[in-house]
Formats: sequence, C-alpha cells, structure tokens
Amino acid sequence: MPPPTATVRVIYGDTDQMGVVYYANYLRFCEIGRCEWLRARKVDYRAIEAGGLYLPVIEAHLRYRSPARYDDVIAIEATPIDARAATVKFVYRLVRQATGELLVEGYTIHACVDRDGKPRRFPDELAALLRIEP
Amino acid sequence: MPPPTATVRVIYGDTDQMGVVYYANYLRFCEIGRCEWLRARKVDYRAIEAGGLYLPVIEAHLRYRSPARYDDVIAIEATPIDARAATVKFVYRLVRQATGELLVEGYTIHACVDRDGKPRRFPDELAALLRIEP
Amino acid sequence: MPPPTATVRVIYGDTDQMGVVYYANYLRFCEIGRCEWLRARKVDYRAIEAGGLYLPVIEAHLRYRSPARYDDVIAIEATPIDARAATVKFVYRLVRQATGELLVEGYTIHACVDRDGKPRRFPDELAALLRIEP
Amino acid sequence: MPPPTATVRVIYGDTDQMGVVYYANYLRFCEIGRCEWLRARKVDYRAIEAGGLYLPVIEAHLRYRSPARYDDVIAIEATPIDARAATVKFVYRLVRQATGELLVEGYTIHACVDRDGKPRRFPDELAALLRIEP
Repeated sequence: MPPPTATVRVIYGDTDQMGVVYYANYLRFCEIGRCEWLRARKVDYRAIEAGGLYLPVIEAHLRYRSPARYDDVIAIEATPIDARAATVKFVYRLVRQATGELLVEGYTIHACVDRDGKPRRFPDELAALLRIEP
Repeated sequence: MPPPTATVRVIYGDTDQMGVVYYANYLRFCEIGRCEWLRARKVDYRAIEAGGLYLPVIEAHLRYRSPARYDDVIAIEATPIDARAATVKFVYRLVRQATGELLVEGYTIHACVDRDGKPRRFPDELAALLRIEP
Repeated sequence: MPPPTATVRVIYGDTDQMGVVYYANYLRFCEIGRCEWLRARKVDYRAIEAGGLYLPVIEAHLRYRSPARYDDVIAIEATPIDARAATVKFVYRLVRQATGELLVEGYTIHACVDRDGKPRRFPDELAALLRIEP
Repeated sequence: MPPPTATVRVIYGDTDQMGVVYYANYLRFCEIGRCEWLRARKVDYRAIEAGGLYLPVIEAHLRYRSPARYDDVIAIEATPIDARAATVKFVYRLVRQATGELLVEGYTIHACVDRDGKPRRFPDELAALLRIEP
C-alpha cells in the first residue's frame, strides 16, 4: 500500500451536529489528496491553468464506511488510474491515521478542457505522469 | 416532471476561482432538496432525531453536466426511490431555473440507524411515505 | 424595524458538533443579506463586476448573541450605512424568525476597487442608492 | 515574533470566483491556529468538552489586508491575550509564508461555559496556561 498522499486534521468547521464530518467535506479532502499527488511529482497546477487548461470534475462517487470525528487525522491516498486522451480518474482511500480504519473510499473523474470548456489533450508533462503511475 | 423540491441562489461563498460552484457544494444543495421533500410531507427530521433515529449517508454519486454560476437560481428535485427495510435512495436533478439546463444529477443512499449506529427500521410515518412516493 | 432582507433555513452542513451553526457560516448569511438588499433595489452585482468594479470586504465584525440551530429559519437584516467615496459599511442583524431572538449582529466594510485593486468611486447607480438608504 | 502556530495550503474549495480566499474561510484558518496553539501545549480540547466545558466564540473581528490565493501557504499565528475569569481573547496574524506579507489580522473572544451555556471558570490546566502565555 502506498504512503498517504496527504493528511488533514478534522476541525470543528468540518463537523456537523451528528458529531461527525459533514458528508460534503470529504470532497474537500479528496481535492487535497489529488493536489498533493500532483505536487509530489512537481506538477504545478497553477501553471497548467495559466496555460489555459483546466481539470474540472465530471463525476464523483463516495462510499462512507466509518465516520471521521473532530481532531482525527485523516490520511488521504489519491491515485490516478485509467487515464485517457482527455479524462483521468482518481481513486481515493481515506483512513483514520491512528487506527488505519477505512473512513471513505471513492473516485472522481476529471476532464481536460480549455477556457471554452472544449476537451483537450493533457499537457505532455501531465500525460507522461498519468500513463506511468503508479 | 414534478415541481422542484427547493430552490437556492448561488452566492460567492459557493463558487471557486474557476468562476463556478465548487464541486462539494452540490452535496449541500442535495441536502436542501431532501430536507424540503420531507418538510413538504410534514416529516419533522428533528423529531426523528429526538426519537433516537438518524439517516446518515452511506453513498453519494454526482454527475456534473454543466456548471452553475454566481447568482444562478438552482431548482433542486429530490425524489426517494427504492426504499428498503433500513435504507433509502434519493435521486437528484439540479437544473438552472432560468433555462431548465441540467447542472448536476446524482443520488445518495441513507441508512436508518440508532444512536449506536445499528441498523433500524424507519419510523412508521416515514416508512409509509417512502413506500408510496413519488 | 425594516422587514428582513432575506431568510435562510439552517441545514446540517451549516452546523458543527456543538449542535449549533459554525461561527464562520454567519458570514455566508451576511453575504446573502447584502446581495438581497442590492437585488431588491435592482442592482445587478454581476453587471458591476462585468464593468470591472468589485466590492471586496476589508473588515468584518460579528457578535454572537445566541446560537442558531438546525432547521431554524434565520431572518437577515442588512443595511448599508456610512457610505463614503470608495467604501461602504453594511450592518447586520440576524434573528431567529420564529421567536425574534437576536442571534448575531455585526458589520462588514467594503471597498470599491477595480481589477487591479485600486480604489474607485462607486458606480453612479449604486452611489445614489447608498446615499439615500435606508 | 513567534513561529507560526500552524500552516495551511489554500485549496480550490477555499477560493471564490474573485480568485481569492472567500472571506468566511479565514475564520476556519483562525480555528486551526488556536487549536494548534492548544495542542502544542498538550491541552486536549476533546477532554475539556468531555468534561462538560466549551469555549464558544462570542465575538470575532477580521481585517483583510491582502488576498490569499490558490496554493498559497498561509502561516497562522494565534496568541491568547487578556484572559479573564471566564473569557479569553485570541489574536491572529495570517501571513503568506513565501513572502511574509500580512493577509489578515483579527481576534476572537471565547467564553467558557457548561453544557447549559452558563459561564464557568476555565479548567485549571488551561487557566494556568492562559495566564503565563505568550
């Protein structure tokens, strides 16, 4: 199993009155995971955007296995799979770092588009990475 | 097609730097839709919780069809389907009210559990509603 | 007392594990209030931005008087005061609609700037409104 | 000047369509700062709550000096001052780590209350810390 891509500590602002992380906020954690995956490989997402390409999400899926709570450290594994000409899928596993317990698993699918929203090929640097990982 | 269950106007706080609604925030809109579906049928979710039952989400899926933007009014249709002994699925269609354009479609699946997280039957009032709707 | 500028119903996503609205989220409600104040006076904030002017917040202050809870309807009063050449202050009163109880009061101060962040005069239409209101 | 209490990297979900961090989200960063201040001194906020005491915010004030942007690392300094029998004030300085530029400064005031919201003295351990810091 790969090392976690990133970790995040749950704050009050992430929780809801059920005493657990609000279901939408895991998508924030997934964003943190995939950005750190890119950063760890020296991909500068700001530079991609400055070059006129964007990676909007077109689909998201989460299974909630166990609730994360205030002050938990969540370890986020994000892994791109199934890269195609103009889409890539990231899969996620979020676990409670202290125990290894699975909290949430899921995926997002991203398109590569230009400023007008038209499908485009990935930048070469990113395409190369997505083909060989992991 | 049923009337929208609820509407919500996009604020700055819902958007991200791409100029569109951030992908996690649609799950907030889905919550608004399913709560309004319950409210319209006189189901008091606070009373359900006060009685010791909860409806946590166990799965969520969204397809992002077109981006919502600042000041758009989003019409949210939420419809429960496929109710079982201790789970129910809500499906969602979020459209731009001004044009009818589909923005996001998806579903959430909810368990009915007690304070200890053990599966329980739905309260009778809610069970009756879920069987006969929509 | 003027009628509320807007109302919003508290959702799960607004609350935290203390069972009340998370303190940052009241600033979202303030945004809803001041946008509705503008909308009620036919000011199109998108048009102002399209014209190259922005109203970023430069200061915010909130006093938390009583906690709002899940399913509460919050009535938001937003009122501009003390408009100057290139700044305006909005004051807010957020009350629980069912009881009139004061929840939060506060203010925000906004600058009028251009795309480069330089101070600019308000658009004429907005300047006229800010001088004569409330 | 003390070392930063915590750092946080700005994600898409923190930004708004103006391309900067949404004004409410700085209150999330302030929460991160004050929790890390406590953690660094071995104060377990969960234990305080488990003991029936809470530190709700009763006032918040922020001055927005310069906008934080996507991917910026924000260094958060949080420092308690002016502790009294049942209230404490935290002051914050948020700077862009790469440049030291001041982004936001402000404060929050917190009460110490019991489950019924009645003012209570701080737990001894916390009271001792608040008197001798910074």
